[in-house]
Amino acid sequence: MKTIYFAATSLDGFIADKNNSLEWLFQFGEPEGDGGENIIQNFVDSIGSIAMGSTTYLWLYDYLSKSKEPWPYKVPSFVFTSRSDLPSIPNADVRFVKGDVVPVHRKMVELSGSKNVWVMGGGELAGKFYDANLLDELQLHVASVTIGGGAPLFPRYSRPLVLKSVKQRGTGGVELIYQVQKL
Amino acid sequence: MKTIYFAATSLDGFIADKNNSLEWLFQFGEPEGDGGENIIQNFVDSIGSIAMGSTTYLWLYDYLSKSKEPWPYKVPSFVFTSRSDLPSIPNADVRFVKGDVVPVHRKMVELSGSKNVWVMGGGELAGKFYDANLLDELQLHVASVTIGGGAPLFPRYSRPLVLKSVKQRGTGGVELIYQVQKL
Repeated sequence: MKTIYFAATSLDGFIADKNNSLEWLFQFGEPEGDGGENIIQNFVDSIGSIAMGSTTYLWLYDYLSKSKEPWPYKVPSFVFTSRSDLPSIPNADVRFVKGDVVPVHRKMVELSGSKNVWVMGGGELAGKFYDANLLDELQLHVASVTIGGGAPLFPRYSRPLVLKSVKQRGTGGVELIYQVQKL
Repeated sequence: MKTIYFAATSLDGFIADKNNSLEWLFQFGEPEGDGGENIIQNFVDSIGSIAMGSTTYLWLYDYLSKSKEPWPYKVPSFVFTSRSDLPSIPNADVRFVKGDVVPVHRKMVELSGSKNVWVMGGGELAGKFYDANLLDELQLHVASVTIGGGAPLFPRYSRPLVLKSVKQRGTGGVELIYQVQKL
């Protein structure tokens, strides 16, 4: 079981642009593995629970509302928020939580069994898991574009990370996997 | 002849931290090629002129003063600055210039012959070369660390870049080469 921050980022370290858009990312299409496999779906199949912040949740909520798609995850999703007005989604296992990540992570691990915990974002939430020494890995898809500003990938001065794997995904991106050196 | 922005960046897109330090980078040592070759020296050997901003120049000036090292470049270096108080360096071909990058670049190309033009940084100067449609390539060493803030790598919303080459450099970094799609 690992706790993984799996995210897509611009080359200059932003996960969403100043207008909270992902157009810069979507212009490249979905990244594919060397054998044409769906990298995102394979990752989703390996996880047992999801953590996200309220901005990420609302982005996803709006995206699904507009595209009339159902909630895509079968596993429990924990949305960290101090707000009480977030919309809920029918037939989705979404649990609103607040405060410290430690007890929520304990619950997530318990629910995930042998599967991994996905910290979906944003960067500040991933940083809180890092601060609490709970983050094992960063799996990043770096899109071949700079966007000059927006939501930061990981607003922390980290200890050196250990680059474990590098995979070019065509000309539009590269997948980098870093192990976090735990305290 | 190519005009190349060759720089080291943190994983989250900063070329210097908030204290203008590169300690986060130097902790990994110098990157080496697969055959142990000195990547930076090989790059320096391929260039015919250098462009840098005043912050980069002053950083370099202080670094060399403290370490008592001589100016390391034989080729002409063009320092873009509106300041008139920058210190000069004996026996170094450093030329202070200001204003538009276009005429300076023309001069640099003329002086470089078949060799490349190196845009050393910072990010804003590289952005100005990009804006003027003069930048051909980004050659980036991405260090395995996040620093949470500082001098931005490339403060532009770029057109999609074309990822040409990916090389892992141990666990401490990865070298990414992007071609700029010229207008």
